[in-house]
Amino acid sequence: MPALKPTEITGEVVWIGHVPDRDASLQSQSATEAPLTYAGIPGEAHGGLTRRSCSRVVSQHPRETEIRNVRQLSIVSAEELAEIAADCGVDALNPSLVGASMVVMGIPDFTHLPPSSRLQLPDGATLVIDMENRPCHLPAKPINAEHPGAGDRFKLAARGKRGVTAWVEREGLVRVGDPVRLHIPDQRAWAP
Amino acid sequence: MPALKPTEITGEVVWIGHVPDRDASLQSQSATEAPLTYAGIPGEAHGGLTRRSCSRVVSQHPRETEIRNVRQLSIVSAEELAEIAADCGVDALNPSLVGASMVVMGIPDFTHLPPSSRLQLPDGATLVIDMENRPCHLPAKPINAEHPGAGDRFKLAARGKRGVTAWVEREGLVRVGDPVRLHIPDQRAWAP
Repeated sequence: MPALKPTEITGEVVWIGHVPDRDASLQSQSATEAPLTYAGIPGEAHGGLTRRSCSRVVSQHPRETEIRNVRQLSIVSAEELAEIAADCGVDALNPSLVGASMVVMGIPDFTHLPPSSRLQLPDGATLVIDMENRPCHLPAKPINAEHPGAGDRFKLAARGKRGVTAWVEREGLVRVGDPVRLHIPDQRAWAP
Repeated sequence: MPALKPTEITGEVVWIGHVPDRDASLQSQSATEAPLTYAGIPGEAHGGLTRRSCSRVVSQHPRETEIRNVRQLSIVSAEELAEIAADCGVDALNPSLVGASMVVMGIPDFTHLPPSSRLQLPDGATLVIDMENRPCHLPAKPINAEHPGAGDRFKLAARGKRGVTAWVEREGLVRVGDPVRLHIPDQRAWAP
């Protein structure tokens, strides 16, 4: 039996976005579809086969070290985003405010999906989940601009619900409304 | 806190090998050091930024589909390889017989290391563990050639001990004798 196993869990892509220039703004712009290439979503500020390492991996690499880019996409779950919004005291949060590349509905406990899980789209395009994305303070400003005060509560509210980062394993296309199937590593927990 | 966390666990690289032509032979040739590039170990038959998909991922991709190559290296643990050898009824198994790229000593429960764990070498070269490698029948023949009969027992003996597959996240050099530090995703188990 291969270690990578399809599950019966299929979600739906309910939103797609890309960030054209993250120095200008963290916010992503929505789209109805996006090509997925080995470098990520074309025109996406987080794209590239490699990237310069950031503060998130400073325990592994000095800042600005060239490493492979496992943060091409930021994927969040519609359900978790709704919970974050509620905890921020607002009715809903536009995914663009948190710089999301994709919002998926219907996959339970999304942020804690097993690392190295795959999300596969109808045309075969496949994303590899690197691991949980941890919330940072950056979305506070754009959220505050739209919902005064709510941004200040984002980082705490988003803990354990900020989604995952992912990269493209097989190229293709993603469209809003696409089903997306979960595949997971079929192996027991590490027991050192 | 970033999700990728260094551990206090450091192993040692005790063997390095590469397979120059897997159609000719699964066996790897040993070396005292090897460059690690984004395409894997140069001259390695399992190298490349991408690969044609094989039977192991036929639940995800039709055979021969171009996908990113997460199987650049096959890494096994010295301790688990010794257990496999014992179960095959031999004193020791040369790692070349199982087509290994690297043998690491001192990292417990190696085959079940968390997917997306990192192994980091002294110069900063970093490998990402995709997931458990599942034993196949291919090593039977070269093992039988050296230890008649033992190869027939390999696939069963290697279950849960076949090591992991990995790919290069940061380029550098690996040398026999190098310490190799384990970094793991610091997140709770998925609870769907």
